[in-house]
Amino acid sequence: MKNLKLGIFGFGCVGQGLYHVLQQSNSINSEIVKICIKDLNKPRSLEAAYFTDKKDDLLQNEGIDVIVELIDDAEAAFEIVSTAMNNGKSVVSANKKMIAEHLEELLELQEKNNVSLLYEASCCASIPIIRNLEEYYDNDLLSSLEGIFNGSTNFILSKLIAGGQTYDEVLKEAQDLGFAESDPTLDVEGIDPKYKLCILLFHAFGLVAKPDDVFNYGISKINDFDIDYAKKRGLTIKLISKCRREGDKIEAYCLPTFIPIGSVLSQTSNEYNAVVLESAFSESQLLYGKGAGDKPTGSAVLSDISALNHDYKYEYKKKAKNEGKFELCENFDMRLYVRYNGSSPDFNDFESIEEKYQSDRGNFLVGTIKLKKLKNSRWLKDSTINTIVLN
Amino acid sequence: MKNLKLGIFGFGCVGQGLYHVLQQSNSINSEIVKICIKDLNKPRSLEAAYFTDKKDDLLQNEGIDVIVELIDDAEAAFEIVSTAMNNGKSVVSANKKMIAEHLEELLELQEKNNVSLLYEASCCASIPIIRNLEEYYDNDLLSSLEGIFNGSTNFILSKLIAGGQTYDEVLKEAQDLGFAESDPTLDVEGIDPKYKLCILLFHAFGLVAKPDDVFNYGISKINDFDIDYAKKRGLTIKLISKCRREGDKIEAYCLPTFIPIGSVLSQTSNEYNAVVLESAFSESQLLYGKGAGDKPTGSAVLSDISALNHDYKYEYKKKAKNEGKFELCENFDMRLYVRYNGSSPDFNDFESIEEKYQSDRGNFLVGTIKLKKLKNSRWLKDSTINTIVLN
Repeated sequence: MKNLKLGIFGFGCVGQGLYHVLQQSNSINSEIVKICIKDLNKPRSLEAAYFTDKKDDLLQNEGIDVIVELIDDAEAAFEIVSTAMNNGKSVVSANKKMIAEHLEELLELQEKNNVSLLYEASCCASIPIIRNLEEYYDNDLLSSLEGIFNGSTNFILSKLIAGGQTYDEVLKEAQDLGFAESDPTLDVEGIDPKYKLCILLFHAFGLVAKPDDVFNYGISKINDFDIDYAKKRGLTIKLISKCRREGDKIEAYCLPTFIPIGSVLSQTSNEYNAVVLESAFSESQLLYGKGAGDKPTGSAVLSDISALNHDYKYEYKKKAKNEGKFELCENFDMRLYVRYNGSSPDFNDFESIEEKYQSDRGNFLVGTIKLKKLKNSRWLKDSTINTIVLN
Repeated sequence: MKNLKLGIFGFGCVGQGLYHVLQQSNSINSEIVKICIKDLNKPRSLEAAYFTDKKDDLLQNEGIDVIVELIDDAEAAFEIVSTAMNNGKSVVSANKKMIAEHLEELLELQEKNNVSLLYEASCCASIPIIRNLEEYYDNDLLSSLEGIFNGSTNFILSKLIAGGQTYDEVLKEAQDLGFAESDPTLDVEGIDPKYKLCILLFHAFGLVAKPDDVFNYGISKINDFDIDYAKKRGLTIKLISKCRREGDKIEAYCLPTFIPIGSVLSQTSNEYNAVVLESAFSESQLLYGKGAGDKPTGSAVLSDISALNHDYKYEYKKKAKNEGKFELCENFDMRLYVRYNGSSPDFNDFESIEEKYQSDRGNFLVGTIKLKKLKNSRWLKDSTINTIVLN
């Protein structure tokens, strides 16, 4: 058992909670040596000697073994994390954007410097999904992984479906409660959950996918007509991130999806996240917990620090084994609901159309389309057209 | 990566499923060499050369690295497993009774012979709870673990609450569907989930508890009055196994418990199992999946075989760290509902009584009692008295 000396970047609620839990824990034999913050003048709960505003007081400090990176800015985080690793320090990070965008470089940095980078908190906060993919599903038995990876949109959708409020009202409430950012684009357009999907895709199948190569479609165009459609059919709407393997092809996307009421995913409300895994013997398993917030994030960061005490590293067994084997594929058929009010979607884009409905309130079709066609269609960007996956 | 040679005891559905998945998997580099069965004359799906009815054809076979034990009889299983380990073979087992009753001997056998014994399938089948306790919750941050660990009783309770059938009718249906044994005692009296609780107690806190030392109380006395009580209050009833740490004391029991409708445990129906963990930062996490049946059991056995390919062993870190630190304690207060029709419970056993209700249909009280007093009370065994935990 090591006695790890930690240097922390960022001292918000997560950092402060970490400090208190480490004080109380006997088994996580670690102590905070130095904390790098932006504003040295802000009042702090610890004595001033802990704090610095100079990165190098941590990164060049030989008395620090592990850097815990808890800042927002992905590019600044990447510079901190890569410098730390090049200086022989292991790293714990919660920065999904940074991890998803720099996956290959981060792998090389770990290997070159023989250090460990853990980032359990980056995906679904308190849910230990990365560790389970690395350790328990460390073979080729996994066939699919899907779930609700974003608390803000899940809160918004839960409220919208409950009824009585418009999208804009619900979004404002989410922002007031701190569940959504003042610029909600990353959440509501499905970009934040896509970062997580890219990370999980890698740990599930060993496939490195750039966020730009994975399709995302958000929830901002969902209206009353769509919600009525769901309710009349015993469905609800969730923003689902999904990856699935068929042979050597893998499909991956993040799209709003109709989910039967009563299923476990339908019961994942508000800030909760859920991950459903399908593996050999085709039985599904669920991991469920809070997917955002200081405490859930803190608990994952703590578990990573605890693991570093035992010299834990991700082994990336699947990458080694599957090198070059799998590829992202956009040739999968998807069953879609498309609602349109003004202009129509191009019906020729569809493999087949099972239903068409027209009324004064709105029109919809239900049909099958290749992901590639959907992604490249012009009509998808039309503000009066919305689409939702229908399984 | 090894190429493991497997010897299997028992060739029911789990064994047969294993054979087929191993044939298809590229990453679980293992093959079945020999299978020991009771009845050589029964028709089998594989060629006769695979089969033997002599234990030693597997146990003394130097061409076999790993014994997979899939038989029912706990004592016969213990002899097989201990002989295998003494002969330098690693073992995968799904036998909860055998593991729970022989925990310390099994630890010694692993250490003495430098072999690995894995038994993920013994607790909640497909839910990877042991691995998560060993690897992710490998520190002192866990404060409690509770859940639904028995599919038969969960099926019976789901049906009973749905209404329209008596306990005996529902039990018979469960037996007809294969969800309950012809002698249902182990399930309905809470003994089977108690075995699992003992195993999880060990992996959660490092405490070895004999099944006899953990209190269990079943579901066979639940009647319409109890169900009405639940329904009127927005509650359902689940057979909950629970362990919780407070300082160096640990309480552990398996008892029917009122659960608010809408909570995740209330939504765990039929053959599903669920485990809720509470850890530092007091956030709760849930693992959910099928807890019984051939396929869920097979998936856990497969994951153990896959792990043996990477020389995985349980490290039992918490046992080493907490040696002699924790003890089972029966001095915790429990809030109970006690329903009585004929004779009364001894009111003096209670620390306090908040409510008493009397009617022609039945009487109940709600009060607080120490587990020790409850366990030793005479009235608890009275067939006209039933008790359910009320949190």
